[in-house]
Amino acid sequence: MSELLAALAAIVGPVHVLTGADTAPWDSDWTGHYRGAPLAVVRPADRDEVAAVLRLASAQGVAVVPVSGNTGLNGGALGEGAIALSLGRLNRLREIRADARVAVVEAGVIVDALNAAAAEQGLMFPLSFGASGSAMIGGVLSTNAGGANVLRYGNTRDLCLGVEVVLADGRVMDLMTALHKNNSGFDLRDLVIGAEGQLGIITAAVLKLHPLPATVVTAMVAMETLDPAPGLLNALQDASGNAVVAFEFMPRSFVEGYLEIVPDSREPFDAPHPVNLLVELAAPQPGEGPGMALESVLAAAMEEGTVTDAVIAQNEAQRRQMWARREAAAEISFRRNPVIDTDIAVPRDRVADYLRRIEPRLQARDPGCGLMSVAHLGDGNIHYTCYPTRDEPALMAALRAEIDALAMELNGTFSAEHGVGLSKLAPMARYKDPVALDAMRAIKAALDPRGILNPGKTLPPAGANRTGD
Amino acid sequence: MSELLAALAAIVGPVHVLTGADTAPWDSDWTGHYRGAPLAVVRPADRDEVAAVLRLASAQGVAVVPVSGNTGLNGGALGEGAIALSLGRLNRLREIRADARVAVVEAGVIVDALNAAAAEQGLMFPLSFGASGSAMIGGVLSTNAGGANVLRYGNTRDLCLGVEVVLADGRVMDLMTALHKNNSGFDLRDLVIGAEGQLGIITAAVLKLHPLPATVVTAMVAMETLDPAPGLLNALQDASGNAVVAFEFMPRSFVEGYLEIVPDSREPFDAPHPVNLLVELAAPQPGEGPGMALESVLAAAMEEGTVTDAVIAQNEAQRRQMWARREAAAEISFRRNPVIDTDIAVPRDRVADYLRRIEPRLQARDPGCGLMSVAHLGDGNIHYTCYPTRDEPALMAALRAEIDALAMELNGTFSAEHGVGLSKLAPMARYKDPVALDAMRAIKAALDPRGILNPGKTLPPAGANRTGD
Repeated sequence: MSELLAALAAIVGPVHVLTGADTAPWDSDWTGHYRGAPLAVVRPADRDEVAAVLRLASAQGVAVVPVSGNTGLNGGALGEGAIALSLGRLNRLREIRADARVAVVEAGVIVDALNAAAAEQGLMFPLSFGASGSAMIGGVLSTNAGGANVLRYGNTRDLCLGVEVVLADGRVMDLMTALHKNNSGFDLRDLVIGAEGQLGIITAAVLKLHPLPATVVTAMVAMETLDPAPGLLNALQDASGNAVVAFEFMPRSFVEGYLEIVPDSREPFDAPHPVNLLVELAAPQPGEGPGMALESVLAAAMEEGTVTDAVIAQNEAQRRQMWARREAAAEISFRRNPVIDTDIAVPRDRVADYLRRIEPRLQARDPGCGLMSVAHLGDGNIHYTCYPTRDEPALMAALRAEIDALAMELNGTFSAEHGVGLSKLAPMARYKDPVALDAMRAIKAALDPRGILNPGKTLPPAGANRTGD
Repeated sequence: MSELLAALAAIVGPVHVLTGADTAPWDSDWTGHYRGAPLAVVRPADRDEVAAVLRLASAQGVAVVPVSGNTGLNGGALGEGAIALSLGRLNRLREIRADARVAVVEAGVIVDALNAAAAEQGLMFPLSFGASGSAMIGGVLSTNAGGANVLRYGNTRDLCLGVEVVLADGRVMDLMTALHKNNSGFDLRDLVIGAEGQLGIITAAVLKLHPLPATVVTAMVAMETLDPAPGLLNALQDASGNAVVAFEFMPRSFVEGYLEIVPDSREPFDAPHPVNLLVELAAPQPGEGPGMALESVLAAAMEEGTVTDAVIAQNEAQRRQMWARREAAAEISFRRNPVIDTDIAVPRDRVADYLRRIEPRLQARDPGCGLMSVAHLGDGNIHYTCYPTRDEPALMAALRAEIDALAMELNGTFSAEHGVGLSKLAPMARYKDPVALDAMRAIKAALDPRGILNPGKTLPPAGANRTGD
């Protein structure tokens, strides 16, 4: 053991090998629901030190769990007894090429830091989610992170042109292209993105940047039921030429959660409403277009009665206030215990149906449980939260399974954007195509034959596949 | 041998096992440059017959080469002595879901047929390339096809939500989701797309559709040099809110090639010009916006002298005429022999530089060789054609290597959109990251352990990797 630590110290320097009480920040995730003290936290300075650590770990058969911002919600970055490989020191923003609209960054660059640098050139990396102040590019890529702007800009996979990856045996795979067309063999880039560190450690990437919009209009919109919301989105897209960048749903229970954790905050409207939508439109050029489209669509919807109130942000401070509520989702969800926080998706015209049907099914299993949701409605992506009445593993598992089951019944997925990690191994085994699971295991074995990379996550064990269909 | 044929006939029916002279349409590609008579052409009716054929082939270790429209240019769909697995009978357009903007199609559906059906619902599958009247979805997916609209809509990978794949051993992998967010394990979909049949046979897919634009404006634009063209594209994007769907470059030599093969065709302009751009803008809504943006940008460019002539199509017939010239690229390129037809990409602001620098390098190797190009300028993707003075393999290889080398020198790629097949095995070995090549081989071996799927294509043999850098 101490020989291994000495060898690690020889690679990264003794001060960058943390053990004992010093590993505390890496012993649990942000939610506190997942725990696992690593053997040591190792903080390499660069790609070559990452490679050396992996060569050593591979030779000795020691598990390695990559961790960057540690903002995940599925236990994907914890590993009892493993080497926690922290990418935080790989934080160089190597280059922003404004003309080509690309950034070349290392895995430890924080999303907000990239955006601050890009903004100086009138550009942005358009991923938008609550943890962007601490989430790092390595984790963003490894989980194929989504968020509130996927509707317009796509998820992380859509925003990445090239990656640099250290394989399990320490070899470096250089796919750092900035090209938009490059059909030269298998798509290893998209294979590694979202692979949760199973196939290699991403150390750098070429990311797409977009122009900072010159025009942004943001509104809170009230409805009495969710059913007309997809139609409102379509009307906004049609009227604005697809200028909608966010279309977020917060039910009353979510607004109340925000009032609970930020007691001096304001209600979004004078009166409470069951459906609260955060709507944002943007355009690259200055102009009245998006604002006019928003106002005319809202006026028509109020005329026909589907929209009952609306507030358009008059300045950036008001806009920030609207977003602050939405971005507090994780804090709101985890404000109580016990809690089941999930991340499912259904076709977006089934979201209202889902929410109507899930409630009685959960109440039947646990009468009196608390229920709340928040949704990237434009993507059909629901973060559903359930507060069971009792902290019993069997009850928790049953409630979670119910949430997944209805998503699957509506042609959805049990895992939309947060990833699998530890928390979704059960539905992976239950619902994922068994041939696909076997193919994933074969690829994992091919690229990480000793199984040292983030073991126990993402892929349920062989033999757990569903059968009989 | 006859036992194998009998077993194949038992699966697909004797009439769908073609041998001898009946295989002629599958014995060579469209260019005639690649040849290889298959053992038999097998035409399964559906996925289950594909699976049965692969189970048989896998058990007996017989090579299987999938072929759909056979419109590829790289020899990827030919296999001397192999089972040619024709997907042409899997031609059911299972479903168009207009609200969800998706089509569920089988691999043998022809691109134009899909578009005809989508158009009835006001939608389109926005891949645009000359062979769309015979190219099938299976080949489009297996090559990650590109074309003239990638600038706006992305390549095939960006247009596919789900796939159904039969693995080498005959197992069916069902990834037929229509969801936009679905982080549930490795991205096997994007791995199979563009894999040229190495990892499995795609039998069906869920494809994204887009609204047919209500407004389309198309123009031919003349310039005296190519250097200001990227700036013109940026100006058009800025003025129109990114409404440019195509930005295609044809040099004078290309226009002359068209006049040669279509002698009664018209010149694009009254006078010949060295640079001829086909520019198209589109918007989902009816309106004057794209037309006004185009006219004002062209007026400004003519004022400053960068654009010397321009013709805007006044009706669909004129538009079709402009596109007919561009879409004849393959016929124009292959009108002479010997010919080297390539497909490289460089950053789009380096295209002019590339074309200036490649000419003397090729003339130095083969004084008097003919040179021509046509480019998806918005993607930096050049189809470069060289007509050597002699049909000598060594000379041909040297010219081809020169074309690739300069692309790599300018941070480009030796393979933009046509794929690798047989024709680019040499630059794959020379330029592709050797660790990436090894990773591809490991994945290939994991999913196709007997190596029956399209052997000899896509991946150069192990040991051919570059070394020493």
